[in-house]
Amino acid sequence: MPAFPDIHSPQDIKAYSIPELEDLAAACRAEIIQAVAQNGGHLASNLGTVELTLALAKVFNFGPDGDRLIFDVGHQCYTWKLLTGRVEGFAYLRQQDGLAGFPKLSESPFDYYNAGHSSDAISIALGYQRADRIQGRTRQNIAFVGDGGLTGGVSYEAINDAGQKQDPIKVVLNDNQMSIDHNVGGLSQHLEKLRVSQSYRNLKGKVSGRLSPQSLVRLSLNNMKKAFRLRLHQSSAFFEALGFRYYGPVDGHDLDALLQSLKALQESPHPTVLHVITQKGRGYSFAEQDPASYHGVGSFEIAEGFIKPEGPQYTFSACLSRKLVQLGSRDKRVCAITAAMAQGTGLADFATAFPDRFFDVGIAEQHAASLAAGLALGGLRPFAALYSTFSQRAVDQILHDICLQNLGVTLLLDRSGLVGNDGETHQGLYDTAIFQGFPNLQLFAPADSQDLDLILDYALSQDGPVMVRYPKAQAKPDLELAAGQRHILSARQLSQGTDYTVLVFGSLAALALSATRALADQGGPQADVFSLVCGKRADLAAVKRSLAKTKHLVILEEALGSYGFAGQALIDLACLEHNFSYKIISVQDPLRGQAGRGELLQAEGLDVSGLAQQIQSYLEKN
Amino acid sequence: MPAFPDIHSPQDIKAYSIPELEDLAAACRAEIIQAVAQNGGHLASNLGTVELTLALAKVFNFGPDGDRLIFDVGHQCYTWKLLTGRVEGFAYLRQQDGLAGFPKLSESPFDYYNAGHSSDAISIALGYQRADRIQGRTRQNIAFVGDGGLTGGVSYEAINDAGQKQDPIKVVLNDNQMSIDHNVGGLSQHLEKLRVSQSYRNLKGKVSGRLSPQSLVRLSLNNMKKAFRLRLHQSSAFFEALGFRYYGPVDGHDLDALLQSLKALQESPHPTVLHVITQKGRGYSFAEQDPASYHGVGSFEIAEGFIKPEGPQYTFSACLSRKLVQLGSRDKRVCAITAAMAQGTGLADFATAFPDRFFDVGIAEQHAASLAAGLALGGLRPFAALYSTFSQRAVDQILHDICLQNLGVTLLLDRSGLVGNDGETHQGLYDTAIFQGFPNLQLFAPADSQDLDLILDYALSQDGPVMVRYPKAQAKPDLELAAGQRHILSARQLSQGTDYTVLVFGSLAALALSATRALADQGGPQADVFSLVCGKRADLAAVKRSLAKTKHLVILEEALGSYGFAGQALIDLACLEHNFSYKIISVQDPLRGQAGRGELLQAEGLDVSGLAQQIQSYLEKN
Repeated sequence: MPAFPDIHSPQDIKAYSIPELEDLAAACRAEIIQAVAQNGGHLASNLGTVELTLALAKVFNFGPDGDRLIFDVGHQCYTWKLLTGRVEGFAYLRQQDGLAGFPKLSESPFDYYNAGHSSDAISIALGYQRADRIQGRTRQNIAFVGDGGLTGGVSYEAINDAGQKQDPIKVVLNDNQMSIDHNVGGLSQHLEKLRVSQSYRNLKGKVSGRLSPQSLVRLSLNNMKKAFRLRLHQSSAFFEALGFRYYGPVDGHDLDALLQSLKALQESPHPTVLHVITQKGRGYSFAEQDPASYHGVGSFEIAEGFIKPEGPQYTFSACLSRKLVQLGSRDKRVCAITAAMAQGTGLADFATAFPDRFFDVGIAEQHAASLAAGLALGGLRPFAALYSTFSQRAVDQILHDICLQNLGVTLLLDRSGLVGNDGETHQGLYDTAIFQGFPNLQLFAPADSQDLDLILDYALSQDGPVMVRYPKAQAKPDLELAAGQRHILSARQLSQGTDYTVLVFGSLAALALSATRALADQGGPQADVFSLVCGKRADLAAVKRSLAKTKHLVILEEALGSYGFAGQALIDLACLEHNFSYKIISVQDPLRGQAGRGELLQAEGLDVSGLAQQIQSYLEKN
Repeated sequence: MPAFPDIHSPQDIKAYSIPELEDLAAACRAEIIQAVAQNGGHLASNLGTVELTLALAKVFNFGPDGDRLIFDVGHQCYTWKLLTGRVEGFAYLRQQDGLAGFPKLSESPFDYYNAGHSSDAISIALGYQRADRIQGRTRQNIAFVGDGGLTGGVSYEAINDAGQKQDPIKVVLNDNQMSIDHNVGGLSQHLEKLRVSQSYRNLKGKVSGRLSPQSLVRLSLNNMKKAFRLRLHQSSAFFEALGFRYYGPVDGHDLDALLQSLKALQESPHPTVLHVITQKGRGYSFAEQDPASYHGVGSFEIAEGFIKPEGPQYTFSACLSRKLVQLGSRDKRVCAITAAMAQGTGLADFATAFPDRFFDVGIAEQHAASLAAGLALGGLRPFAALYSTFSQRAVDQILHDICLQNLGVTLLLDRSGLVGNDGETHQGLYDTAIFQGFPNLQLFAPADSQDLDLILDYALSQDGPVMVRYPKAQAKPDLELAAGQRHILSARQLSQGTDYTVLVFGSLAALALSATRALADQGGPQADVFSLVCGKRADLAAVKRSLAKTKHLVILEEALGSYGFAGQALIDLACLEHNFSYKIISVQDPLRGQAGRGELLQAEGLDVSGLAQQIQSYLEKN
């Protein structure tokens, strides 16, 4: 691979000609494919936005004291990293001590916001814009938003605010799916409407007819998906109704058209959106043909493409997937909801088996939770699967619409606990603290796949809300529990000892067993190890009896510091017995940056030797 | 007042003529004015929707097995309560053991959803609709939504979902403000656009020309407000872009026009919105003239109207109001944000003093939090005031955009703790549990107004996020603390004793002092009482010393059960000393229904005698 050009700032390409930009685009794509093939990452969306990012850098005046480019989510920031002095670190993308996979304030003065979650960038741009106005500064604040991000309600809240007050922020809408609208007769009719709209004609005058509807049709059809997205019958009408000017659509791979459109955007004194149509996966044939699979990928061979693992998987998500199809066959009331994560949460199989009972609502977690409440009110038994970190979007709806009404909704929080490679913004370390006290809610954390099966059976048998949290991790090997011991409402004893008591909430049970055995095998202290999957009103009688004997308690969970299950466990346990010492072992604040889940666990002392060491150190002091 | 007609179900008025409906409307208004004058409540919005509710009841077939009317927020449900067999209870609206102020499943088979929070009703209606489809039922599901509720992002998420999948839910948009659009040249131009739109012409054909643009202009101008609302340049375009059919606008006080429009809505096989323009406060002259003040009111004399209390107020909100204006004068970086609650949170004075630094974003708490983050990134010092219960909407933005980026945003959670008369859905009992563990966040709960002043000074001096929670209650009398004792980062000793230790988080400090003195005055045990305003990493050394002596600890706070500050306090205190007993005194789960704050405190044993009794009972057992 030829050396990447010597570029350290977007200013360095201001004088580039279009052929030079095209060469640079090819160089960026090569770097992106190389780094993602090695480290995993977000490939398809980043390949689709190379020209758009270069054109933005050429037209605007970005810099620590200049214009600001605010990425939404951050799945399109790789080209930006390459333009802003981070080529060397790029080989270590998403790795421990390497570059973050998202824009990050601490990484570069050209990053203006720690992105990661969806749909907030327009609000952030508006905040910057108003701060500039109040302080007498004149800068351009540009939110770079995908069409998926626009399904999130907060983006609409921000558009409504900016449109009403006429704050002249700019929105670059990176649209790789939205333009297909079967409801109004297909894309050609849609484009026809746009061509006759006033703003389109205005723009067309400015950009000298470089828009090519034919190529847009081709691009967009390539990207047609079944996934739920924002679908607008007329984009211009939508934005204009909310007070924005609308320019577009423009071909996101036509640099000449992009440059002219962006100049028009730059000159607009109003809140304005530029609608850009891009092709996900552009320039890497495997990704062009299957952009969904290349949205976020693990490492792969460039020549061969990403190869999905064959045979049955044993992640918690995969186990959930199989079990939920079973439940759906058994009980016709069972339905499933995802917020744009059908693959990630394992709901895709349910969607295939029961398409009428499956709902993908887009990046709209609030609506997902309230929709679940409505389905339950209507007599169904919804299972809503969200990533733990994104469930934070639906806290109020989970409390107000589901828990306070005591509805039979099961909330499946995937990617709870430590999450690999996405960094601080994606950690699933807050759910237990946030949700455990909600009225009527039963909270579970399976130790393995058999637990998950039992919990899901139990959830379906309940009339009230159930929440299940589990990490992005293997759900095997199963705990060695005798048939009668596999209960989910009380503590299960995994090993016998006399010196100290271990209580594990959730999936670190096998780790606890290994670490305590390692200590005992070295002639060290012997532990009573208890696994608990029920995080609320569980039967802890056996743990209390153990504590009366050992007087030393270790509580182990994947939460942040003491903000999780531990505080409540101590309250429950201390009701009867006060003279014991304890240690909470969990994840330490401040959070570490991105790294693999195994690396993070090790860094936190949550591998076998680290945990053994933590326990030994505690016992020596007490 | 004449007796209310013998109506127990919406079915009872199906045969009513328009004159009979008009008489019934007058009877409803009399009941509503009477009940709210006596008990307080939501007056203006309920008076505005009398005819609309009656027309809905006449046209649709509501019932436990029939069509469903799903109120958003529930500020317009009083007429519905009167139509569904709740006339007798109506005199006890919002009172302990009386009728709830919102629709409530447990209160009537004609209530289909426990409303209270804004913007979720479209999601709930969509859930019902899909449950009907899956189970082979045919019913109409109608979301009754105010224009304010439409500013909340979740409503847009639901409209997008229903529009895309063409689920034939119906939305009745009760619009008392939105139609004013100064950006496109005022109301007449706006109405002109609507009059020429296709859907308007369609509807006009159906409803025989009963729409009266002149009366709409008059109504809408009456309702013109500075408050932020959803403002659409063209309502039809907005909804149609998202896949809905649009009918309207229709005069919400013209029964003939309403009946014909609702019949058209009933017959539509598509997702359809009917845009209805109503006058807030209709039929009560004080409320017509000042609908904002009559949105939610306390009790008043009908002939005199509601009289605002004169002289300086000493609620926490009022103290916040004065202090924030001071900070704004002192420091030009200070700005303020509200989500449609400028009056309630006490930000109205700041808005008057510094209009350029004040932002009302509408019912859009997510955007409020992210906007605050953007303003802080741009160099300002935003203070965002939200009701505790509505801050639940912004959990993810507070974590992701503010706390993880360690930005200097101060979050003011008004109406924390027990909230009077609004019922379970408005209790501010979850904030401590949800937010206390968020990285970088400092959490405070003032005991009185002097604490609040100090905390706000401190917050402005910090570069990271600060959260302050306080109840809707008096902030006087001030605690008797010597000058040097008024510290906010460590426990302050309020009284001396040898028998037990009391640790109070927040504003129940004065209560704790009174209750412990009452006990001591009766010759009972003597307490060391400590007041704590800092809920995280506070200096508890004095409390530890006290505990070493007394061995008995009472922790007092306004949270739900043990899910609050108590668990963390125990963890902190138990680090050094284990052999003490403790009791957490807070609010019990299950929650009680609506009642005054004083009544709720008493019912929870959180008045002087109740608290003294709880303490005595604990000490006798330990």
